[in-house]
Parts: sequence; C-alpha cells; structure tokens
Amino acid sequence: MNTVELIRKKRDGAALTRPEIESLIGGYVRGEVPDYQMSAFLMAVCCRGMSPEETAWCTDVMLHSGAVVDLSSIPGRKVDKHSTGGVGDKVSLILAPMVAACGVPVPMISGRGLGHTGGTLDKLESIPGFRTGLSIDEYRDAVRDTGLVLSGQTADIAPADRRMYALRDVTATVESIPLIAGSIMSKKLAEGIDALVLDVKTGNGAFMQTYDDALALASALVAIGTGCGKETVAFITAMDQPLGMMIGNWLEVVESVECLKGKNVPDLMDLTYVLGGAMVHLGGRAATIAEGIVQCRSAIWSGRAYEKFLQAVERQGGDSSLLREPARYPVSKLSLEVRASSSGYITGFATRRIGVLAVELGAGRLKVGDPVDPKAGIILSGKIGDRVGKDDLLGVIRTDREDLADRAVREFSDCVTIGDSPPRAGTGVKALVDRSGTHEWATPTTY
Amino acid sequence: MNTVELIRKKRDGAALTRPEIESLIGGYVRGEVPDYQMSAFLMAVCCRGMSPEETAWCTDVMLHSGAVVDLSSIPGRKVDKHSTGGVGDKVSLILAPMVAACGVPVPMISGRGLGHTGGTLDKLESIPGFRTGLSIDEYRDAVRDTGLVLSGQTADIAPADRRMYALRDVTATVESIPLIAGSIMSKKLAEGIDALVLDVKTGNGAFMQTYDDALALASALVAIGTGCGKETVAFITAMDQPLGMMIGNWLEVVESVECLKGKNVPDLMDLTYVLGGAMVHLGGRAATIAEGIVQCRSAIWSGRAYEKFLQAVERQGGDSSLLREPARYPVSKLSLEVRASSSGYITGFATRRIGVLAVELGAGRLKVGDPVDPKAGIILSGKIGDRVGKDDLLGVIRTDREDLADRAVREFSDCVTIGDSPPRAGTGVKALVDRSGTHEWATPTTY
Repeated sequence: MNTVELIRKKRDGAALTRPEIESLIGGYVRGEVPDYQMSAFLMAVCCRGMSPEETAWCTDVMLHSGAVVDLSSIPGRKVDKHSTGGVGDKVSLILAPMVAACGVPVPMISGRGLGHTGGTLDKLESIPGFRTGLSIDEYRDAVRDTGLVLSGQTADIAPADRRMYALRDVTATVESIPLIAGSIMSKKLAEGIDALVLDVKTGNGAFMQTYDDALALASALVAIGTGCGKETVAFITAMDQPLGMMIGNWLEVVESVECLKGKNVPDLMDLTYVLGGAMVHLGGRAATIAEGIVQCRSAIWSGRAYEKFLQAVERQGGDSSLLREPARYPVSKLSLEVRASSSGYITGFATRRIGVLAVELGAGRLKVGDPVDPKAGIILSGKIGDRVGKDDLLGVIRTDREDLADRAVREFSDCVTIGDSPPRAGTGVKALVDRSGTHEWATPTTY
Repeated sequence: MNTVELIRKKRDGAALTRPEIESLIGGYVRGEVPDYQMSAFLMAVCCRGMSPEETAWCTDVMLHSGAVVDLSSIPGRKVDKHSTGGVGDKVSLILAPMVAACGVPVPMISGRGLGHTGGTLDKLESIPGFRTGLSIDEYRDAVRDTGLVLSGQTADIAPADRRMYALRDVTATVESIPLIAGSIMSKKLAEGIDALVLDVKTGNGAFMQTYDDALALASALVAIGTGCGKETVAFITAMDQPLGMMIGNWLEVVESVECLKGKNVPDLMDLTYVLGGAMVHLGGRAATIAEGIVQCRSAIWSGRAYEKFLQAVERQGGDSSLLREPARYPVSKLSLEVRASSSGYITGFATRRIGVLAVELGAGRLKVGDPVDPKAGIILSGKIGDRVGKDDLLGVIRTDREDLADRAVREFSDCVTIGDSPPRAGTGVKALVDRSGTHEWATPTTY
C-alpha cells in the first residue's frame, strides 16, 4: 500500500481500514516504513483521533508484533491490574498478593517510573536480590506454582509498541488517548490474562488531569479489552494527593508491608480493596465486587496476603528478612523535617510537583538509565482535611542529595496548601466503566 | 531549545515565536533536528495551521538558509512572476520576453513539471541546446546584459526549502497553505527581485481546486511578499480548461512563439497581458496595470517581444533556428485524432485528468528523474463554449507510446464534456489580491 496516501487519509480525518493499519504498523516493525513517515502518521492521529475500531486494530497489530503468552494450561481465570500512574501509588504491592491469596492467579507485568510517577518495578527492586527480569518460562512457572508473579516486560512482548513509544516520546505524540490506550492494552493482552482491572487516575497528580480525559481513556481501554474477549473494567480514581503516606521506592515497600500486616491507611486501602474486589469478582471467586471486597479484607486480616507476598519475594530472589526487620535497611544521609508555616487545615497538595521533587531527591530518573536511590523519598504527616497547628510537622524528606536540602524543604512546603476551613470531602473512587457504560461508584459498605 | 516542546506547542494549536521557528528549521538544516521530528512538526502545521507572522518567519529562515542573489547593481526594478501551476500553462515563455521588451528586467527562476502540471524548465529544455542550469554569476550577467534570464533554481538557493519539500512529499504534508506559501516565497525572494506578480490558479486543473483555497493562498503569498518589502500582487485565475490549445513541452514552445509573433489565442493572451501589465506597472514603467497592458500589446505587435525571446534563447545556448522553422523538429510516431461522439457545445474539460494523460504520453515524469519526451502532448481543437458536430475533431494526441494509443484516445474523449447548450461564459482572471485586500477584476478594455 501507498504509505503517503494512508498518512494523507488520517491527516484529512478519515478512518483507516484494518489492512491499512496493518500495512502502516506492520511495515514500521518490518523496517519498510521509516521513522519520519510513522511520526507524521502519529501526529495526524494526535490531531484527528482514531475511531474505536481503528484503536482496536492498532492494538491488535501491536499485540501480535511479538510473543503472546499462553497461560491457558494453568487453572483459574488469570486477572491483572493496570494503573495509569500516580504519586505514592504502591497499590500493586498490596493488591497482587491479596488477590492471589483469594485464589485468583495474578500474572502482573509492571513498568518503571515515568515522568513524575513511580513504577512498581523500581519499588520491587529496592528489595535486595529481587529479580524482575524473568523469562517467559520463569513467568509462567511462577504463576503455576504460587498463583503470583511480579515481573517486568520481556523484550519479546509487543516490540511494535516499544518502538512506537520511543518515537512518540521524541515527537510530542504521547498525549493521544487512542495511542495511549493501544500502548497499554497491547502489552496487557500479551500477558496471557483472562480479565483486567484498570485504575485510571485523574487529578493534579495524574497524566489525565481532567475527569473527562480520564473517562475517555477508561472507555477506550474497556472497549479494546472487551473487544479482544477479555472482561475489562476500569475505575476512575482520585490522584489529587499522594496515595498513602509514603513516597519513594523502599518507603513504599515498607508502607505496603504494614498494610499487608493489617494497618489501615484509609485512602490507600479503600482503593486497594475496591480494585481487589473487582479482580476477585472477574476471577470468578465472588459473585459481586462487594463480595470480592469481603474476601480481600479476610485475606489481609488472616495474614494470608502478607504470607503470599513473602513467598513471591523469596521465589524471585528477594531478601524477605528485610521486610520482617525494615530497621536494618540503610537510611538516607538527610532526614529533613518540613513544618507548617501557619495553622489551619490541609486543603490540597501540588501532587505532580511532589512527584517531581521525589524524582529529584533520587527516587526516580531524570533520564533513561539514571540510577535510582531506593532510600530516597518523602513521608507525609497529614493528608487533605487534616488539622495542623503552626510549626506542626507536614512531612519528612529523605535524601542523600545535600545540595538539594534547602530547596527541597521550600519546595515541599510550597506544595502543601493550608486553609482556614476543611475542604469538602472528595471520593477516592469516582466511577466504574464497564462494557455497559459508565456508572457512579459508591464503595459497598455492606461487608 | 527543546524540540519536543516546540512540536507539542504547535500540536496544541499555539503560535511559535521567531526564535522557536529558527531553532526548528535552522536546527533541521544544521542536522540537529532529525527527519522524524521535522515530519511530526510539519504534520502538526498541516492540522493546526500557522499565523501570518509564523509563515513570514518560516519563509525568512528558509530564504536565509542559502544564497540570496543581489541584483541591486543592475538598474531598474526587477520583477518576476510565479504561477501555482496548471495544464497548458506556457504563459512564462511569452510573458518574460514581453515584459523585458517593455524595459523591465525579468530575472525568472522556474521549476519542472509537478504532478499533472507542466514546468517552464522542461518546456525550455525542449529547445535543443538550451541551458537552464546557470550559476548565480551567469544568471546575474544575463539580467544585466539582456534584461531577461530564464533559469532553474541553483543548488545554493533556499536549501532548507529543498530538504523540507522532499520530506513533505513523502509524509503527506504538502497540502498546507502556510507551508506552500513559505516554500514558494523563500525561493522567489532569494532571486534578487524587487516585485512579484503571482498567478494563483483555481479550478479542476489547479492544485487549489476551490476559489476559497486559492484566495487563502494568494493572501498568504501577498502578506509574505509585502512583509519582506517586495511589492507583491496576486491574480486568482481560471484553470478549468487547459490554457491555450497545446499541451506538451515542444508543442507549448511552438504555441508561445506563434503568440509572440502576434497570434491571438484568447484565454492564453488575455491572461498573459494582465500579468504582463501588472509586471510593467510594478516595474515602474506604467502608472497603472491598464497602461502596462497597452505597453505589452505594443511589445508583441512590434515584434520586440519575439526578438527578446530569440535573444534569450541564443544567449542560453538554444538553437533558435528551430523556433523560426518548427517544421524541422522531430514529430511523434503517433498522431491520434480524437473525434466527438455527439454534437453540441463543449461544456467542460476534466483538466487534471488531461494533465495526467499528457504526463503518461511522455510530456512529464511519473517519478523523479524519469526522462521527458519533448514531442509528446495534446493539441486541442476546441475550447469551452465552442460548437462541435458529431465526428468533428476534438483534439490530436502526439506520442511515441504505441501501447497507450487506444486508452489515450478513450481517456481524452472521456475528458471532454459535450452538452446541448453553451455554458455561461466564465472569466479568466477572477480577482486581484494586493496589500490592501481582494478586489474583483475586470480586464481593462480602454486600450
């Protein structure tokens, strides 16, 4: 096919056919379509959009550009979760063992920190010895033997997406809902899952800052998943303050272990239970999401979720003794207290800026390949709605970067807004999107 | 500057600053911005447009990417004409010597056939020995010595435009009015001219098929020219049938010579006189366009225009004896008569298809570097409004391509519409666009 005519068609706002999309993306992977034509096409998609059918075909071509894992020999419905990313979002570390402890196999493939957000792989790798670079065989065996694997993406999964993502990153074509949806789903559908729960975040710490954008992305993701025969539900959830109290790789492991051992960090555990309830439901172990939530709570209270996490860490080579005795872990050179300059109520966080600050402190990468300092991060002392007095502690910054100390304290202080009256309470989970549409969500309280 | 941020800014519909445009286009010419980023930027421009200021800055950066010819040492105001291209458009061959014969120096740089349209360079090169590849010194000397030069673009003129045009051609980013305008004007402003007359064609044989697109392009061109201190006027003219009676490189030279010797081919000469009148006016040799037209008619009637053409051909190495005795020129193997299948009036031509047919017959190139057959082409027997009887001659096809003979006759026949009543007469010159705006145009009849 004539690549220039296909680009022109999209430029002029028309929809491409399935063979046309195959010709473009397949041709790109085969080296027949050069980068400069693909980037012009991607920009045309950013400007003109893609229909749900085009998005599904794109996803399918990218999915089949590499290996598609087959887990059908393993009993049970395999379910994973994907989050669009936020600050302090350690949900996966608690959720995956909790759901696996309910008897639903969880083959979880995670990514690294991106921009201002943290990544599950970086958090897991803060546990000395933990191996995330599993082969497909090791990945499959772990699911079979323990019902849980926490892995990184292998090189043979969706190479088309990897090449296109690298190109999008340098051509300002990342921010397109069909392209984002295709990228996420081509990787997730290659994992061998039967169903998928999506956490699409919205707010000042999310990539999709507005509710409408988050809803559009959630709808696109659900349409692709169900179109490919995988039961898919998406929750639209708040990311207008860091999730939980800790930000930073090892700090988030510590907070996750505390929660796995029964601690209630309200916003973090409310969200984890809802996502877990949905996974247990889609995994066929509960008739409703509410029943799934009951089972998840039981997995935490009983200690089974924590045991499952220790088992997975040990199986993947991690030193579980540090999870049992976190005080033995190295501590940052600096521990900087940030105090309130006035009294009142915490009314908001500049969440994205806090994420960027954590990256600068060492918790993330400013460019590909930078080393990460697992100890670095921020510990919050309060959340939105909490009362603070003047000079009360707002948080503690942990870093080895002595050169950043003064600026970091100032920056974090600037990121916390204190007002005279408490803000109206928001909800953590705002909506559920499934194949039948968008539904308001009120977390079940019948358990 | 961060190239990705500049692409993102244009993608989101914002206007770039002058330093930002310099960074992008200058960076591209210096090899710092890769093709894949430039093509994403060009597609964003296609989708989001550019302001008049951005278009002017783009043009200026492309203009100054190479040599800018200085003709200021040559007395008189130097004036050129540019046409956006059509079928049978041999105006330049008559116009340039006619205006030069009125005492206005004409430094004309032309291009080759593009798509379905012919190019002045290919027509000139059908004259054996004619050299179009002049150096800048040869170009300047010809203007000084004879007041006329008919040249191709040298390699050192606007290299940024040449590289960007090649990229646009393969990334479906040609059809953007700001990009087209910048490409045309960066080359024209590098020629050393003082003023410019533009022929922006509209109709089914033009690149800008609608009047509104042609008007938008004309306005963009005039804004750039006047913004750069060059007096610029544009005419919007009809291209809904081939111009004159002949299509094909040598055939168009023959028709031009006939017109230079005084033959009146109405649509061709009406347009040539209007454009010429404007050039003589902008060249300071006539107080109005109407007065300029009077001088142009005198240059034709007196034979001075024809003498000037012969002089330029000889100076550039062409065999002028063939212009005096065109019967000595080789003739195509085939001369195929196309006759009317019914009687009536010619109501229209599928002009673009006729241009494509002429290319296939050998008059143009299907891909870069193809040889051109100077003899090949089409001779019309009638124009819109003419009465034809059944089996009357509609035209003659000249080609060496025996394999195409049957299809060519059928195709040309299909391209001529015959109806029961004559169509309403259209006008050749539809509007004049100058720095003060758009004006309806009625060709002056006071001469």
